[in-house]
Amino acid sequence: MRIDIWSDVVCPWCFIGKRRLETALSHFEHADDVEIVWHSFQLDPGAPTTPVETVAEALGRKYGGGPEGGKTMIDRVEAVAAEEGMLWRHHQSKRVGTMDAHRLMHLALHEGGPETQGRVKEALLSAYFIDARNVADHSELKDIVTGAGLDAEAVDRVLGSTEYADEVWADIEKAQAFGATGVPFFVVDNKFGISGAQPVEAFGQVLERAWSESHPVVEMLAGGGASGDACGPDGCAI
Amino acid sequence: MRIDIWSDVVCPWCFIGKRRLETALSHFEHADDVEIVWHSFQLDPGAPTTPVETVAEALGRKYGGGPEGGKTMIDRVEAVAAEEGMLWRHHQSKRVGTMDAHRLMHLALHEGGPETQGRVKEALLSAYFIDARNVADHSELKDIVTGAGLDAEAVDRVLGSTEYADEVWADIEKAQAFGATGVPFFVVDNKFGISGAQPVEAFGQVLERAWSESHPVVEMLAGGGASGDACGPDGCAI
Repeated sequence: MRIDIWSDVVCPWCFIGKRRLETALSHFEHADDVEIVWHSFQLDPGAPTTPVETVAEALGRKYGGGPEGGKTMIDRVEAVAAEEGMLWRHHQSKRVGTMDAHRLMHLALHEGGPETQGRVKEALLSAYFIDARNVADHSELKDIVTGAGLDAEAVDRVLGSTEYADEVWADIEKAQAFGATGVPFFVVDNKFGISGAQPVEAFGQVLERAWSESHPVVEMLAGGGASGDACGPDGCAI
Repeated sequence: MRIDIWSDVVCPWCFIGKRRLETALSHFEHADDVEIVWHSFQLDPGAPTTPVETVAEALGRKYGGGPEGGKTMIDRVEAVAAEEGMLWRHHQSKRVGTMDAHRLMHLALHEGGPETQGRVKEALLSAYFIDARNVADHSELKDIVTGAGLDAEAVDRVLGSTEYADEVWADIEKAQAFGATGVPFFVVDNKFGISGAQPVEAFGQVLERAWSESHPVVEMLAGGGASGDACGPDGCAI
């Protein structure tokens, strides 16, 4: 079974949704047969590489209420994160772009496969939400992703070029093709979509349904499973 | 939507099943979006290229009753064919092998795509059941399949070699992997199997179900279609 997840590194509900999916998977009988592939989505493509303000300041500016108003919004999502067992320092996070982080996520998938990519995703989200690190800064990024297992030379090569930028755009276009207007967006077995950080139970239901629909591969439908008239090695039904 | 059909040229229920599927498709709203790909299956791999007996004689020999007994079996299936609007001369058909006919079916798919292959399939079945022609004879085969649109030079090339034999064997192996022990065997969207020449209504039901399951590509499952908390271009739900 395969789960494709569109997500951004600076997206609080993406991190919360990731935890809820992980909880659902911990109760799912066939979790060992589930492969997760992360895809890129940019919530705030105009955000700078060198930060000029905190997320709280940016929210206060955008929605009114100043830094204090922004802080209040962040407090609420931090409370939800706490319910999922995470102590965030998101009130200190800076508003930054994620293009380079996404390119490194593609490097991770390409070089190490889904497991490595999953470790890099966790490392990036933790760095941003728990440690309030700058996930646009190249030396920070290198430190974060090599800590999760990426090869330092490959990381330098990607950060020093535009490698995997096309893959990031292709991911974003595919999300749009699926009709996703926000993230997190989950697609199970190319078949079932889940929009947003749904409750753990909702993830669990989708996992069960997707599993039951994909095993067996061919469901004999017509005739209540009975065969119609056919010809076989021993001749034709006549 | 895609329908893969395993079938043999000398298989009466394959031709009857083809007509029933076509009738179901004529009532199916999305028939224009259905692509059919034919696959090889050999019911009687030991049958000769140069015929030594009619099918009726072969049946009578195998099941007892002599040519008359075989003829009686054929009469019954010809009566079913008549119900589907076809006047067969199958009582005159010779027992012959179909390897070369199957190789030409692969040529048709490769050179002309599913539409051309469909025309060649119809031509081969009609030649065998309606006109009692020898579908193992090379000059007959060439006449039949070029009449359905295949290039004469390509046909000569295939008939003068073992080209596409591997593809025929791969088809047969794939049928076995699906658990098919006879033909016709239909697989809709790689997902739903239909064994045998089911009634028109059964085909119709499978078409409807397969369509509804594959459109939209992503079925929003969790939260009764409602989104969970998410982040979008206008910010995060908080």
